[in-house]
Amino acid sequence: MSASTHSLSWPANAAANRQGNVLSQHINHYGLSQLPSCRDALIEHFQRTRQYSIDFSEPLTPEDQMLQGMADTSPNKWHLAHTTWFFETFILKPQVAEYQSPDERYAFLFNSYYNRVGKQHMRSKRGLLSRPSLDQVLAYRAFVDAAMVQWLENASDEALAECAFLVALGINHEEQHQELMVTDLKYSLSFNLMAPAVARPLPAQQDPGVLRWVPFAGGKAELGHNSETFAFDNEQPRHTVWLQNYQLAERPITNGEFLEFIEDGGYSEPLLWVADGWFWRQSKKIHAPLYWEQEDGQWFRHTLAGRVALDPHATLSHVSWFEASAFAQWQNARLATEAEWEHAAQLSQDDFFGSNGFSNNRFYEPQGCGPIDHSQTPRLRQMAGHVWEWTSSAYSAYPGFKPFAGNAGEYNGKFMANQFILRGGSCATPPGHARATYRNFFYPPDRWQYSGIRLAKDAV
Amino acid sequence: MSASTHSLSWPANAAANRQGNVLSQHINHYGLSQLPSCRDALIEHFQRTRQYSIDFSEPLTPEDQMLQGMADTSPNKWHLAHTTWFFETFILKPQVAEYQSPDERYAFLFNSYYNRVGKQHMRSKRGLLSRPSLDQVLAYRAFVDAAMVQWLENASDEALAECAFLVALGINHEEQHQELMVTDLKYSLSFNLMAPAVARPLPAQQDPGVLRWVPFAGGKAELGHNSETFAFDNEQPRHTVWLQNYQLAERPITNGEFLEFIEDGGYSEPLLWVADGWFWRQSKKIHAPLYWEQEDGQWFRHTLAGRVALDPHATLSHVSWFEASAFAQWQNARLATEAEWEHAAQLSQDDFFGSNGFSNNRFYEPQGCGPIDHSQTPRLRQMAGHVWEWTSSAYSAYPGFKPFAGNAGEYNGKFMANQFILRGGSCATPPGHARATYRNFFYPPDRWQYSGIRLAKDAV
Amino acid sequence: MSASTHSLSWPANAAANRQGNVLSQHINHYGLSQLPSCRDALIEHFQRTRQYSIDFSEPLTPEDQMLQGMADTSPNKWHLAHTTWFFETFILKPQVAEYQSPDERYAFLFNSYYNRVGKQHMRSKRGLLSRPSLDQVLAYRAFVDAAMVQWLENASDEALAECAFLVALGINHEEQHQELMVTDLKYSLSFNLMAPAVARPLPAQQDPGVLRWVPFAGGKAELGHNSETFAFDNEQPRHTVWLQNYQLAERPITNGEFLEFIEDGGYSEPLLWVADGWFWRQSKKIHAPLYWEQEDGQWFRHTLAGRVALDPHATLSHVSWFEASAFAQWQNARLATEAEWEHAAQLSQDDFFGSNGFSNNRFYEPQGCGPIDHSQTPRLRQMAGHVWEWTSSAYSAYPGFKPFAGNAGEYNGKFMANQFILRGGSCATPPGHARATYRNFFYPPDRWQYSGIRLAKDAV
Amino acid sequence: MSASTHSLSWPANAAANRQGNVLSQHINHYGLSQLPSCRDALIEHFQRTRQYSIDFSEPLTPEDQMLQGMADTSPNKWHLAHTTWFFETFILKPQVAEYQSPDERYAFLFNSYYNRVGKQHMRSKRGLLSRPSLDQVLAYRAFVDAAMVQWLENASDEALAECAFLVALGINHEEQHQELMVTDLKYSLSFNLMAPAVARPLPAQQDPGVLRWVPFAGGKAELGHNSETFAFDNEQPRHTVWLQNYQLAERPITNGEFLEFIEDGGYSEPLLWVADGWFWRQSKKIHAPLYWEQEDGQWFRHTLAGRVALDPHATLSHVSWFEASAFAQWQNARLATEAEWEHAAQLSQDDFFGSNGFSNNRFYEPQGCGPIDHSQTPRLRQMAGHVWEWTSSAYSAYPGFKPFAGNAGEYNGKFMANQFILRGGSCATPPGHARATYRNFFYPPDRWQYSGIRLAKDAV
Repeated sequence: MSASTHSLSWPANAAANRQGNVLSQHINHYGLSQLPSCRDALIEHFQRTRQYSIDFSEPLTPEDQMLQGMADTSPNKWHLAHTTWFFETFILKPQVAEYQSPDERYAFLFNSYYNRVGKQHMRSKRGLLSRPSLDQVLAYRAFVDAAMVQWLENASDEALAECAFLVALGINHEEQHQELMVTDLKYSLSFNLMAPAVARPLPAQQDPGVLRWVPFAGGKAELGHNSETFAFDNEQPRHTVWLQNYQLAERPITNGEFLEFIEDGGYSEPLLWVADGWFWRQSKKIHAPLYWEQEDGQWFRHTLAGRVALDPHATLSHVSWFEASAFAQWQNARLATEAEWEHAAQLSQDDFFGSNGFSNNRFYEPQGCGPIDHSQTPRLRQMAGHVWEWTSSAYSAYPGFKPFAGNAGEYNGKFMANQFILRGGSCATPPGHARATYRNFFYPPDRWQYSGIRLAKDAV
Repeated sequence: MSASTHSLSWPANAAANRQGNVLSQHINHYGLSQLPSCRDALIEHFQRTRQYSIDFSEPLTPEDQMLQGMADTSPNKWHLAHTTWFFETFILKPQVAEYQSPDERYAFLFNSYYNRVGKQHMRSKRGLLSRPSLDQVLAYRAFVDAAMVQWLENASDEALAECAFLVALGINHEEQHQELMVTDLKYSLSFNLMAPAVARPLPAQQDPGVLRWVPFAGGKAELGHNSETFAFDNEQPRHTVWLQNYQLAERPITNGEFLEFIEDGGYSEPLLWVADGWFWRQSKKIHAPLYWEQEDGQWFRHTLAGRVALDPHATLSHVSWFEASAFAQWQNARLATEAEWEHAAQLSQDDFFGSNGFSNNRFYEPQGCGPIDHSQTPRLRQMAGHVWEWTSSAYSAYPGFKPFAGNAGEYNGKFMANQFILRGGSCATPPGHARATYRNFFYPPDRWQYSGIRLAKDAV
Repeated sequence: MSASTHSLSWPANAAANRQGNVLSQHINHYGLSQLPSCRDALIEHFQRTRQYSIDFSEPLTPEDQMLQGMADTSPNKWHLAHTTWFFETFILKPQVAEYQSPDERYAFLFNSYYNRVGKQHMRSKRGLLSRPSLDQVLAYRAFVDAAMVQWLENASDEALAECAFLVALGINHEEQHQELMVTDLKYSLSFNLMAPAVARPLPAQQDPGVLRWVPFAGGKAELGHNSETFAFDNEQPRHTVWLQNYQLAERPITNGEFLEFIEDGGYSEPLLWVADGWFWRQSKKIHAPLYWEQEDGQWFRHTLAGRVALDPHATLSHVSWFEASAFAQWQNARLATEAEWEHAAQLSQDDFFGSNGFSNNRFYEPQGCGPIDHSQTPRLRQMAGHVWEWTSSAYSAYPGFKPFAGNAGEYNGKFMANQFILRGGSCATPPGHARATYRNFFYPPDRWQYSGIRLAKDAV
Repeated sequence: MSASTHSLSWPANAAANRQGNVLSQHINHYGLSQLPSCRDALIEHFQRTRQYSIDFSEPLTPEDQMLQGMADTSPNKWHLAHTTWFFETFILKPQVAEYQSPDERYAFLFNSYYNRVGKQHMRSKRGLLSRPSLDQVLAYRAFVDAAMVQWLENASDEALAECAFLVALGINHEEQHQELMVTDLKYSLSFNLMAPAVARPLPAQQDPGVLRWVPFAGGKAELGHNSETFAFDNEQPRHTVWLQNYQLAERPITNGEFLEFIEDGGYSEPLLWVADGWFWRQSKKIHAPLYWEQEDGQWFRHTLAGRVALDPHATLSHVSWFEASAFAQWQNARLATEAEWEHAAQLSQDDFFGSNGFSNNRFYEPQGCGPIDHSQTPRLRQMAGHVWEWTSSAYSAYPGFKPFAGNAGEYNGKFMANQFILRGGSCATPPGHARATYRNFFYPPDRWQYSGIRLAKDAV
């Protein structure tokens, strides 16, 4: 779910069908063999997801929803329209013969595909779409939602089975955009010195105490999704890897721990940084995580709740891979590989990837984890739903990787260069969206996601 | 009135008082020696000007008023607030002891000064000010207007005399921003493929016939403003120049005439272009004036009335100095010097710089001038209020130039490098704002103003 | 051996000693426990390596040796001086009390360290060092060589044992620069339309026939160097990995096969490219491998033997990772992981990594492999010493990776972001330098090395 | 003679003949009506000029003559070849039927024309022409010189008359390149920390005392060249201007006077700078004139005689127009217009534009003018041959300007945008080359010429 993946591409050309139709392998993601019981679940999931976008946007003004702080981010209004365009384009137009779009021009305005001629300017200019208005976009959503529900209720079992994967993909696609709605808005509002507050502030966190380590035995392990429920193509197939023994930190790094790195001169010591990271730091004049600023010796952070004093016990977020890597080097540690991370997450899955595993505090900043009982054996905490944890693994294909069939084939595979994997989900990830096998990916300088650090090291 | 001059700078430092107080020389711009009669005129001018900004903005949505198409342009809402900030900062705060701003943070948000540390990001990020909302900005305007009128009505004659120049400057400053409100909006809307129409289209224009030339005798001439009424510092002092004999085209170039240049390969012939212009053309891939686009062999233009077919008889606008210069070269002609232009304008002034000299068709594109009676002696037409006419003169100080005293000193002088003079005013210039001595200036690649071409050549 | 690794960094600071002294683990790379027999071998290896640089430079004029075609490349004269500076700085100055440099300023001019303040301009300005002259640099080499041999002959066994690793590192460092001397010169000469020839042309190659595949069984495998002889830190430690079954192409791709990709529109089809690769191709207007140019429908290549017609049977070189990846996609294949490549190389090692495994045709372009007997079971060919083969593996640390101790710690680890691994060595790699575990790495757009393509795919 | 004008362009196309043949108006520049006496003078001038280039180059190594410090500068070897190519291309090839170039490829390599397709990379890559070698270039010069002298001696009077202007232009063209040979070499050597000395150092200068002013009466004045001897097209025609009364400083600013500006914080005060200048200063981190550097509180300068301590009494050089303008502002003065400068120079011409007016200390830095007798009426000093003096006048066409006919038409006119006029000639200008009407021009940030400051102000 990099900055780029919210740009789905659905060209209608021959190349798109090269990998063969994989719908059949996805057909029972929603247990569609047990239709029609699944039909109701799908409708409910669709409606709940669509409503969640509206709920998030509710406190925002039409002007707030226009903001585009940089080319990598999109206005909230655009997210609302683009996720709607997805269902219109891939379900309604092909399936509903009499369907008429409220405005045929939306097909271009809200299609994120940008590799074809003449339209590349649009991505960085999404903030210039004052028209259609927010009201028109909301009407577009309502129109498409009504048509979708009507179709979902009335489609034949065969038609529904044929499209169930695309509907599920559309829901997951919208969930990805919901996370971007949070992070893009936060970024875009950060330029306003009036520091608008659109969410509740995080209460003061408790000191989690010194960092402890959890050991894991290596050897043969299984990595990746088993394909029995919905998952993205890049999580598949499940396959064997071999791990050395390793250790993970029991929890992510806190703001206070990162502050020590700053105060120890971590941003001024080239030997802690990879070469590209040092160049980035120098040329961009980076001295602290994104949104941190110092005033009269005191540190503050820009948040969705306005400008607040830095809480040393809260979980660190908004660091780049370069900063995460330098911090780990400073600690004589390293980042985990994604295989180590997933292996450890599987072993502890019951603790944090249940249906309630994700906190509902999306509008908070990442919490800390509070005092830890050090008489207990250390165990992993906050693996899910707090911050995306940078790994040392570059984003690449699993052995036997097959892109989604058809137009969905560009969803993930085309980004397999120059990006690093993040794991775990953040406070902005919608509940139920992520899982232990989920692979997020961003470029090493990217910082506007809720990205943090969990340290790893070799076994002693 | 370059892109930069709407960025007034009012630092309170010693250097600002170097040139001595020039208020005395401006004190009777509004006939302030005849107070209080002048007081009413000033109030009326203030109110009329302030209302004109509101009238322009009325058809625009809050989202439209957020748009910032490039760093050189500003959102309409920002223009509305910045012009208000001017009166608050330079009249109300110094003059009205009990004055309280509705929000002290506006003092920073709407100050355009950008040479001081740490705030340079703001200019290109004005489009990210979703807060304050448009409603709050309009309330800010109403609050300041009420306070201004109250002060104007009740100030002592002495206080009024002392501030009359700054009030007049604030009015002229707002008029400059009114022109930018038109051109910035036009530019920012141009990225929206829905081509919103916020103004009436220009009716089909009549063919003006072949271009004729008007001869002028050179010799000793007077250039510049006589300082008896309001004028900017850069128009002064009036001084002697020497001109050779010359000729000016009776009217500006039309779209159709420029189309001939395109069709003759003018954009592909390096010998027609100055070196920097050719580099600009190549690197920016320029093939036509701004807002022109060709589709299926037909030419269209983006306008405030949406996308319209190119009218060959309408006056050409939105060309850079580079394009104007190349066109003139292609015609074996040249651009006029600003001295030639002003000299000719003075001789013909009655025809076009009277109180009705400026057309009221601000929301139109520049008109053409219709069929010309060729049995008559040619005379200059459309010198005022149609398009700004690029001259061959680089923007520099007149002999004896003195910047405005105090904080207004940065208004014009600091831009005297790398820019060219334009003369005459455009269809977007507010009525009564420009005059024959008025010096506008932009960089040679700039095109988002209503800038056109009037040819000149040496006497035969 | 990326463009950056020829920039050794040897800061004298505390951080450099963090990893502890690893000299002890390297002390017997040259069998130093069997001194003094090893002493002679070391002297011979030192002298042979030093002479090899001179031999390469011999046909070049002083002006040729000044050329720096881009910041990533260095002039030949600079390579000659920098490799000399290495021995002076790390052996002679610490070990020989009475050693006096011919010119103390060389310590700065030829130190490639660039992370410290104020000297960053130097890297891209190496081509501006007209002084010292080539003669002076050659005298510097002779002076240092004499001092080194004298020291190597007379040092105590203890002193030699202590420094043996650094001497070996210096020799390997010079071998890396020898490869860069070839590729940097080729690049820098390519701008001269006179197409100077400084090497013999490659004779016409024979058609190798259709590409066949060699299957390999996966499972548990060992990867990395066993540390018993000299190897770079990034090749170590040897560790276990798990592989799926896979296939490798028996030989690298030829020019002719890549030409089919071009003629099939491969450079115009975005779906074949990763997103960053497509952006690279578009913005750099890439239409063919580096050094290829088309004239009147005929393809030519710039080589060290001048401009020659493209030989369709010769091995392809000078493609970026982006091009390699797109080509593989077009073939419904993929690039090998570095683990697959090394696993396959180990199984076939006798064939190509023997002492004579590397061809001596350094001054040729990469050869093809000639007609293959298709009655035979396919086997891997040209794995070593032809072209560096791009893998799909991003450059990262092996599990348990420990950087070299002391100043050598920056040699490799700091480049572990944004680069891809290449394997096998090229026609420009000095004989004996590379091995099956050797990890080369470059950025995905880099093309000035002899980089080519060997396809891989999953087992059927 | 901007950085760009040493790039002559001689396309053979129709447009080149638009302005009609002006050879007739130049035919008697060398008194060709009095042939053959003039023939000998022309030969002598040709030979002397050609030798002067060789003399300058003599102390430089082949490697020195390869240096190209930035795209605006060219290697000395390229200057030697390009000036030769001029005579070959415009005299020998058209006039001498049997002429054969030593190498036809030189016609491309040493043609500076860069507006035609496919060859634009060459300008910034001139430093990569290791071949042809310096020896080959010197042989090329000798070959062309011999052919030229043979032709000059034997051409018919008619042929000579027809070509005399082009021969004179070629001589003046080479003189312009001679100045660039000095300034380009100085710039390119400045990157070498070994600070090579290729010229004698300037002896300590004497304190000229406080700056005095020389008043001039305005009114009607004549500006420009009378066309009776050789002059460039941009100096013509002579025409009338009108001047206000003004004053000029008696001498240029010294290093010591500029140091006061630095120490008074001149580089940190935005109000002293034009807007573009302040942006330039900020983005380029400019804190002092080019070649100045401070070490332990002491100022040093890079010169052709190596690195030397700053002499406060020597004339300031290597400042940009931006710095000159800010300095003048700081002094409550201004730069002269070019009309004021030329008017003053005409009145004082006998003093400094005689045959010995230019100093022969080309290899020195600009001298100071020593103690001035303050009992005397102040008069202008050092107007010629010390430093090019920035004026406030943008480079533009004189009224009635006609470019040279034919291929020489691109020589000057195409640069008439964004550049400022400099007057007077510098210590690097060849003796006899400049004159009171001579117009040099560079971009406002350019600093690698010997450019300095003479202040002006309005009459009291």
